[in-house]
Amino acid sequence: LDAHEIKPWQVLESSVVFSNRWLRIRQDICRTNRGNTADYYVIERPSYVVIVPVTSDGQVILVRQYKHGAQQITLELPAGFVDEGEEPLACAHRELLEETGYKATTMEPLSVLFASTTASAHHGHFFLATGLAYVGENHWDPNENIAVEPMDLSAAVQAVVNSQMFQDLNTPLALLLAWHRLTGQGSAPAANPSPASRNHAS
Amino acid sequence: LDAHEIKPWQVLESSVVFSNRWLRIRQDICRTNRGNTADYYVIERPSYVVIVPVTSDGQVILVRQYKHGAQQITLELPAGFVDEGEEPLACAHRELLEETGYKATTMEPLSVLFASTTASAHHGHFFLATGLAYVGENHWDPNENIAVEPMDLSAAVQAVVNSQMFQDLNTPLALLLAWHRLTGQGSAPAANPSPASRNHAS
Repeated sequence: LDAHEIKPWQVLESSVVFSNRWLRIRQDICRTNRGNTADYYVIERPSYVVIVPVTSDGQVILVRQYKHGAQQITLELPAGFVDEGEEPLACAHRELLEETGYKATTMEPLSVLFASTTASAHHGHFFLATGLAYVGENHWDPNENIAVEPMDLSAAVQAVVNSQMFQDLNTPLALLLAWHRLTGQGSAPAANPSPASRNHAS
Repeated sequence: LDAHEIKPWQVLESSVVFSNRWLRIRQDICRTNRGNTADYYVIERPSYVVIVPVTSDGQVILVRQYKHGAQQITLELPAGFVDEGEEPLACAHRELLEETGYKATTMEPLSVLFASTTASAHHGHFFLATGLAYVGENHWDPNENIAVEPMDLSAAVQAVVNSQMFQDLNTPLALLLAWHRLTGQGSAPAANPSPASRNHAS
């Protein structure tokens, strides 16, 4: 198809079929762009922030904690849900302080992306935090237990590229976005990576 | 806290509180590592694949379609849910063909990551597809309408770094992983990106 032939669906009916304090499931009865009628389920959850805190000597501040969705102890970037009425920027400052005890003089937006365009409409807001000062006022949510672990940013990026150390989607993406922002790599027209010659060599 | 003090929660009771053909909500009553009892809701959905198809002349094959979670027409990498009993690798070949009409001789794993360690336990499986041949047998799901759009991989990476063009988390992450794999950047110990000197300059 041509791009201009791609059309949004029309929502005929919409209702909430599950709801609690943390999430809602919305059922939409839709007319698709082929004229079919389809029921579709959208997960409604709050948007969240992910912060890449980088110190003046090139360390990234990571947090180790138990995550019950994955049922794993993970090493991730500081992150958290945006409160109702809160600006993502303010949330990023708050979560950084609460989880790590660091304050940042600069909180630079890296990107705003849908967590899943298929399942939901909430966003991840990604920030690069610099000008860090440890003020030690970390304050965890009632069920959080967090170990703060600084590591070399370039080593963290190397771990991402080698598919090591990190288990979630957000941390690798945010680390790569921050690394490209800090090094300027890929932001100017890049040299062609020549997959052709690579394929011939392998 | 020290890393060794981070412990998993204990699940005391578990039940499914919402279920349909596409997703389930599981309620776990947990004892957290502080000894509190907490109810926690986990979204159960199938894992999915994301494919970065790169042609011998450095084009990445993208798809434009309407995504009803985001209620947006998006430009994304080919992707889809893993069927029950299906291997992610087989799924990647199947989805690439179905959505774009391309077959790949090489389907190389890039990474396997939790979509969200907070909310769910399903994974995104990321693949780099090379040795592409257009066989034109694309076959869409009943409600899919897709425009196939090749573009220069380095231009796509540049768009990611500049926070342009793409709206979902998976496409930027997969493009960056593929770009690093193809160019070898970041896989050897990288030069320190010197955020310190950058901060002084700004």
